[in-house]
Amino acid sequence: MAANIHKNGEVIADVTTHPATKRAVESHARCLDLARLPEYQSLLVTKSTLTGHKILRFNSLMCTPDDMIANMKLKRLNYHTTGSCVGGMCVGWNAFNTMWAVTADIDKESGSDYHENLKKWLIQTEAQGLLVSGALTDAKGNRSLKASQQSDLDVNLRVVEKRPDGVVVRGAKNMICSVCASDEIFILPGNAYKEEDKDFALSFVVPRDIAGLTIVEARRPSDDREYQNGFDVPDTGPAQSYLFFEDVFVPNERLFMCGEYGHTGKVIQYFTANYRACIGACVSGQGDVMIGAAVNMARANGLSYKTFMDKLIQMSANNETTYGIGAGAIALGKKDDAGVWVADSLIAHTNKIHVATLPYETKRLCQEIGGGIVETGCMPSYKDFTNEEYGPLIRKYLKAGDCSAESRARTARLAEWLTIGAGVPGCMHGGGSPDGARLVVRANTPFEQYAEYAKKIAGVEEDLKDPVAAKK
Amino acid sequence: MAANIHKNGEVIADVTTHPATKRAVESHARCLDLARLPEYQSLLVTKSTLTGHKILRFNSLMCTPDDMIANMKLKRLNYHTTGSCVGGMCVGWNAFNTMWAVTADIDKESGSDYHENLKKWLIQTEAQGLLVSGALTDAKGNRSLKASQQSDLDVNLRVVEKRPDGVVVRGAKNMICSVCASDEIFILPGNAYKEEDKDFALSFVVPRDIAGLTIVEARRPSDDREYQNGFDVPDTGPAQSYLFFEDVFVPNERLFMCGEYGHTGKVIQYFTANYRACIGACVSGQGDVMIGAAVNMARANGLSYKTFMDKLIQMSANNETTYGIGAGAIALGKKDDAGVWVADSLIAHTNKIHVATLPYETKRLCQEIGGGIVETGCMPSYKDFTNEEYGPLIRKYLKAGDCSAESRARTARLAEWLTIGAGVPGCMHGGGSPDGARLVVRANTPFEQYAEYAKKIAGVEEDLKDPVAAKK
Amino acid sequence: MAANIHKNGEVIADVTTHPATKRAVESHARCLDLARLPEYQSLLVTKSTLTGHKILRFNSLMCTPDDMIANMKLKRLNYHTTGSCVGGMCVGWNAFNTMWAVTADIDKESGSDYHENLKKWLIQTEAQGLLVSGALTDAKGNRSLKASQQSDLDVNLRVVEKRPDGVVVRGAKNMICSVCASDEIFILPGNAYKEEDKDFALSFVVPRDIAGLTIVEARRPSDDREYQNGFDVPDTGPAQSYLFFEDVFVPNERLFMCGEYGHTGKVIQYFTANYRACIGACVSGQGDVMIGAAVNMARANGLSYKTFMDKLIQMSANNETTYGIGAGAIALGKKDDAGVWVADSLIAHTNKIHVATLPYETKRLCQEIGGGIVETGCMPSYKDFTNEEYGPLIRKYLKAGDCSAESRARTARLAEWLTIGAGVPGCMHGGGSPDGARLVVRANTPFEQYAEYAKKIAGVEEDLKDPVAAKK
Amino acid sequence: MAANIHKNGEVIADVTTHPATKRAVESHARCLDLARLPEYQSLLVTKSTLTGHKILRFNSLMCTPDDMIANMKLKRLNYHTTGSCVGGMCVGWNAFNTMWAVTADIDKESGSDYHENLKKWLIQTEAQGLLVSGALTDAKGNRSLKASQQSDLDVNLRVVEKRPDGVVVRGAKNMICSVCASDEIFILPGNAYKEEDKDFALSFVVPRDIAGLTIVEARRPSDDREYQNGFDVPDTGPAQSYLFFEDVFVPNERLFMCGEYGHTGKVIQYFTANYRACIGACVSGQGDVMIGAAVNMARANGLSYKTFMDKLIQMSANNETTYGIGAGAIALGKKDDAGVWVADSLIAHTNKIHVATLPYETKRLCQEIGGGIVETGCMPSYKDFTNEEYGPLIRKYLKAGDCSAESRARTARLAEWLTIGAGVPGCMHGGGSPDGARLVVRANTPFEQYAEYAKKIAGVEEDLKDPVAAKK
Repeated sequence: MAANIHKNGEVIADVTTHPATKRAVESHARCLDLARLPEYQSLLVTKSTLTGHKILRFNSLMCTPDDMIANMKLKRLNYHTTGSCVGGMCVGWNAFNTMWAVTADIDKESGSDYHENLKKWLIQTEAQGLLVSGALTDAKGNRSLKASQQSDLDVNLRVVEKRPDGVVVRGAKNMICSVCASDEIFILPGNAYKEEDKDFALSFVVPRDIAGLTIVEARRPSDDREYQNGFDVPDTGPAQSYLFFEDVFVPNERLFMCGEYGHTGKVIQYFTANYRACIGACVSGQGDVMIGAAVNMARANGLSYKTFMDKLIQMSANNETTYGIGAGAIALGKKDDAGVWVADSLIAHTNKIHVATLPYETKRLCQEIGGGIVETGCMPSYKDFTNEEYGPLIRKYLKAGDCSAESRARTARLAEWLTIGAGVPGCMHGGGSPDGARLVVRANTPFEQYAEYAKKIAGVEEDLKDPVAAKK
Repeated sequence: MAANIHKNGEVIADVTTHPATKRAVESHARCLDLARLPEYQSLLVTKSTLTGHKILRFNSLMCTPDDMIANMKLKRLNYHTTGSCVGGMCVGWNAFNTMWAVTADIDKESGSDYHENLKKWLIQTEAQGLLVSGALTDAKGNRSLKASQQSDLDVNLRVVEKRPDGVVVRGAKNMICSVCASDEIFILPGNAYKEEDKDFALSFVVPRDIAGLTIVEARRPSDDREYQNGFDVPDTGPAQSYLFFEDVFVPNERLFMCGEYGHTGKVIQYFTANYRACIGACVSGQGDVMIGAAVNMARANGLSYKTFMDKLIQMSANNETTYGIGAGAIALGKKDDAGVWVADSLIAHTNKIHVATLPYETKRLCQEIGGGIVETGCMPSYKDFTNEEYGPLIRKYLKAGDCSAESRARTARLAEWLTIGAGVPGCMHGGGSPDGARLVVRANTPFEQYAEYAKKIAGVEEDLKDPVAAKK
Repeated sequence: MAANIHKNGEVIADVTTHPATKRAVESHARCLDLARLPEYQSLLVTKSTLTGHKILRFNSLMCTPDDMIANMKLKRLNYHTTGSCVGGMCVGWNAFNTMWAVTADIDKESGSDYHENLKKWLIQTEAQGLLVSGALTDAKGNRSLKASQQSDLDVNLRVVEKRPDGVVVRGAKNMICSVCASDEIFILPGNAYKEEDKDFALSFVVPRDIAGLTIVEARRPSDDREYQNGFDVPDTGPAQSYLFFEDVFVPNERLFMCGEYGHTGKVIQYFTANYRACIGACVSGQGDVMIGAAVNMARANGLSYKTFMDKLIQMSANNETTYGIGAGAIALGKKDDAGVWVADSLIAHTNKIHVATLPYETKRLCQEIGGGIVETGCMPSYKDFTNEEYGPLIRKYLKAGDCSAESRARTARLAEWLTIGAGVPGCMHGGGSPDGARLVVRANTPFEQYAEYAKKIAGVEEDLKDPVAAKK
Repeated sequence: MAANIHKNGEVIADVTTHPATKRAVESHARCLDLARLPEYQSLLVTKSTLTGHKILRFNSLMCTPDDMIANMKLKRLNYHTTGSCVGGMCVGWNAFNTMWAVTADIDKESGSDYHENLKKWLIQTEAQGLLVSGALTDAKGNRSLKASQQSDLDVNLRVVEKRPDGVVVRGAKNMICSVCASDEIFILPGNAYKEEDKDFALSFVVPRDIAGLTIVEARRPSDDREYQNGFDVPDTGPAQSYLFFEDVFVPNERLFMCGEYGHTGKVIQYFTANYRACIGACVSGQGDVMIGAAVNMARANGLSYKTFMDKLIQMSANNETTYGIGAGAIALGKKDDAGVWVADSLIAHTNKIHVATLPYETKRLCQEIGGGIVETGCMPSYKDFTNEEYGPLIRKYLKAGDCSAESRARTARLAEWLTIGAGVPGCMHGGGSPDGARLVVRANTPFEQYAEYAKKIAGVEEDLKDPVAAKK
């Protein structure tokens, strides 16, 4: 592939070996390897509803609750395997499922060929077993203005030219997961748009190294350690990119929406409902590894993990909460006319609120159990640990429980990485903020109906209305 | 029926008219009436898997996730309709579903006829559309001793005599919901027993007014208001009873377990998993009515409910949390060999922790929105409100928003009733305590497996074991 | 005293014997009795700064941090003694301290005699050792309108006539604590008023039984039990009243503000700062009794209280939180020019937020430890407990730990009373709502200064301003 | 000073210029500079109670509540100035105040000269205005064994030889704040010891560069950025060190405890009570800067900070909570016979629980307000930001509100640094863990007394005792 990824001022020639990206690639590789193990095969491999062939799960259409619950289970497994985000098996998958439904709607309305285009692309993608990352979040610019009101229109990805054989797009998608490990990037519109913003109603798919696309990897906490040797950071890890489209040409057969603003609302609704249902499994999977790290730290400190049982139970309950609500949102969902499953919006967004909150408690408990060297990773570095002169002193004084100082240090570094380091995936704003989720909860709560229930039980017969002048 | 129910030192001749029980009866009646409305019929009525006939939903076997989700939906609807617990459509239903699986096991093991007995009873019960309450909780006696160690063996319901045609039982079941509104009472063992406690491994069903059974209604907060006229308490409401069995004879055909202690663990496991999955819908249903009461109070105070939108969103998110986790526990459940569905234990017990916690926040928010007259119902009584002499002063000074003082007072009384009055159903310990649920979370969390994940990601290769001497 | 107190439609001839008021009177009597015990004397008795005589603490001016901390300590002691609110030693005390400062201001500004009037009244009150309740909260009417905008102007207490020797007032003060046990009632304006509302800027003191004043006791949770014999309710308890002033004449020498609206802001500021600092001791005192009730319940159930140690520690930490913040607000306060101490507003209102929140958790934990019979008091009534026929069955089956069934029932009833019964004092809205407190926190947080700190540390040199058009 | 500090395998020749330490030095310098400003002088400078001379506040004895509240205020100011821990004005100060009381006790008991030694040292320290860091936490080794049971006795700092003119000590003190910026290090025993552990009962003071002491700086989150140019990290910052004592000689006149194990309990009690009272000001000071960073981020995103007012109020209330409880613990403290003030233990340790909890919520809210680029600092690095080729793209797409992209990036990096970066000071375990604090809350809560209050109010007359066999 062409080298269009950069970090710290340099271009990355080979993503599989460059320190800035090799951990993200390793994460995906480890998870893909699981497909070969009998116990995981049914989770990683499924039958295509399009061709009947065996395909990778994350290339499939999710048509039943069980299909979508498998999405959740795969995410949890990925976190168990790598400790953090394996985004190439996540957003893109969800994105093309969303567009499966939306392209059917658009075609029905306007006689376009989007759905057929998508189907062709998907059959090919299934056959090749490609990793497809997904990109939703625009640079956005001023948060109090609409896309068409921005002084620089490019801050939201937009079509700048239409040609007979395709379109030219310009703009940025920010904070996109695992692009460096992916083959393709699937683009969704970043918002529900009205007519004046129709140039931003865009969905398409491009190869990761398409001409005109510049990718810059984001700096993350403690990411310089990824350039160093030693155990101060694990061998796996996430990656997030900024994508800059400078007049990129997208051919018609890879275009799934271009100007049909009236359908962007459904894109956002379907994508967020499904994404926020399933994301509960991500944080529970990482939380499970935090439980494991806490158990190991207790032992490395010379204590039984049972000393901290009430905290461990709380961590586990937190994990099962977001996992359980996610499964609940799926179970209470419905099938779209186009055949794909859609999770319940109200429950899914309730989950997002928890996803943005509970992991902070789980991290706190992990740090509380682990002790001071976990809380901020407050230990000398690997270089010091192995220093010839005073390294022996460090090892002498870091030893605690019935294991080597190195095992204790490695475990503490893992806990640091999970709770305050490069392993933190960023679940609060990933896929949208909790305040956005609260607005959906608001919109889906039938306040007037509940008020009627209360009136009936209380025996109130007159109308109770909001004051006319009341605002806010 | 025979008059075997008492309260406040008197016997209750007619449960439908006596002030101590008529609200519970009214609650059940209102919900049953919904079966006649087209929009609710499919929820209240279903097809028997035994006979193919149309039956009341709460008489049915739950064989699919959708069957069990319908249980949840019915509970939420019942709370919407009555504001509180409609227990005659709840515990008994769950209890006979549990015994459907367990009796099959026992019969398979020992050649007994329990399953066939249960089937016959259920077909008859379906046909007659009976309300069946369920009873699990024994008096228990000293909480640090086992059943067979108690100084008074009767504190757990037990068999005291076996006859050719049946058995004689003695003991108590405490805090049993909606008995006064029910036709039958279905009994489960209150614990998972070992061999020394086999006399307590008992399951059977009896008519509510069987000879030898004395029922005393429990006093609940503000329940004296139920003896008075006026609007200080709604027309609906819950009821809880103490059941005293003084050598009650149970014929063999109504006996479903008698001594088979080895199967009591599964009774507890199945019953609690299903009950705690579905109970999330109870607290969400009551929470919805609290939202409604809060909206109405804001307006009755002269304010828009939008003033309190962040609190209302939090209340709604709380409701959807327990509802969503419940649905998730069901979706992640499995089918028992006997055909009934069983919810996932870990998720269901995680839900119980929330059911015992979140409603306290929802109540607090309802009181916070409603103001001082809601918090403790701090207003003069109905008698004062309607007093000839100074009643006009009360009405003058209780008027606030654009409605009558009476509507404001009624709404405040409803909120009081829901949050600190007779309407509080007692969800913390209902069906078992949250600490019990935490033990199940503990037992179902694979700590060692999680520790292995963490070791692998951290690159720790040596064993990390608990200290040998560690206890607790 | 004249009989001007009513409840449930009847007049109360003797507050010390009538069931509706005798518990509140008993509460005050028990606390007053403590003055005779050497270990409590220094808390209940102090030296008058006006006369140098020994006086009851709650008749004193609070001029130092220690004086105000003694207020806190007395409140906690009162709750330890009675389990609930002893309001006759609370609001009035705080009210006249507030007016001590404000009357000095007014007199200085306008040459009036309010301060001297207050001093004379206070010396007399000290000498007689009177109980003075305090009243702030007006009926208020429509919450979205100002006092002068209400359709019925009386919904806020106001002056309707000025005479040479005094004024005539009309209106209502609602939800006023412990009036029935008090000798006098000290009135403060219920809000910070502007000029158009000057008729509501009123402060004065009246005897409890003054002509033209009608008092109606509020109904509280489970308060009918107070009319019954037995142990379903303790012998102590709170009381809250509605006060209706129908053209009551207040002589000049008992008038401390009448129209000086410009000083009402300081009344509210001083009163709430001090009140909300000290109220932390109320909820901690009641929380201590909840700890005690939980310990006793554990034992009555046959368990060691240590089984629940983590919950008990949390309860204790909650209690010490509101107590500690209260003491902190006092320590960070300042002396007013008139000599009285004023707590720090920001810290005091932060405390109010906790006072409106933490007790709900403490109650929940008390119910969680106590079990189902605590949660909603789910046991047969005293009448049933002592019933000749089936009372023995109840007592047989309520016995659990190494004590009588009666001790267990009494303890459960206490816990019910504290957490969901007549003992709940109503701390969320008492003395103002937590949302009001949040507004004070907002007003006292120097957001722009904090923004400057952040800019300096971040090295940001340009101005960062709010968008011009931004509203809300 | 001798170069005995190391990091990343290299020795640090000059702490004021080396990237690993210069930020900690800068932090102290900025705060010391405040002493020259009139508005801060009274906080930074006070009068010595020993000599009457003007001295730096952090060299003083704290003899009154106001002295200790000044400690709190200084800490909050330091955080406002530097954004993080300025430890050279903290632990040492508290440590010598503690030993002021304890040495007096020891001398009284055994006729030693410790107190006089301390006094001489303190007068000299005051005169020179030295920065004294403090060290309490030993390496500890196996957490389930006592000091004398460890296989390597050195894991707790101990005396290995007594000479006529002093003692030789060996061992380690880990995670010690701001040593690199300090002149001296004041040592306290790390635990309350019994006789078998008397060799660990050690207190003394040494110059930072004493012979035999090897110091290694701990690696902290994202600390490699401190070696780089640009704005990815602020110019200030904390530092924590590991101190390895390899047979260091301490002369008698700098020795304040050596073997008097019976007094170690009071050392721990006094130190933790005062430290945990005052540490509330640290987290509130950093929380204030988080409020500022959140306000700035909102604006840099194009929004008014008022959009997030409810979250900002919560952040402020969190800050005032730990500050207020700290002040309360001080106000409720007492004077030791030796003249120094000691905070109330129960309230101070309650504060520690909040200090270990509330900042996590404050950080979460800061991240929630700031958006995705704050949550994990998910932006390209400074090197990318200023890259000639694609830097303009980054700047184009990071611009949002009415300020430069650089100001937005700087502010986001500050928020990252405060919440998930090198600025996080480690308050959960700093000065001891919250579980340790909970044990103190447990030990100081009079459970039996509270149980008696509850019995009296409930009318329970018989004894309620814990079951004999109950353990745990």
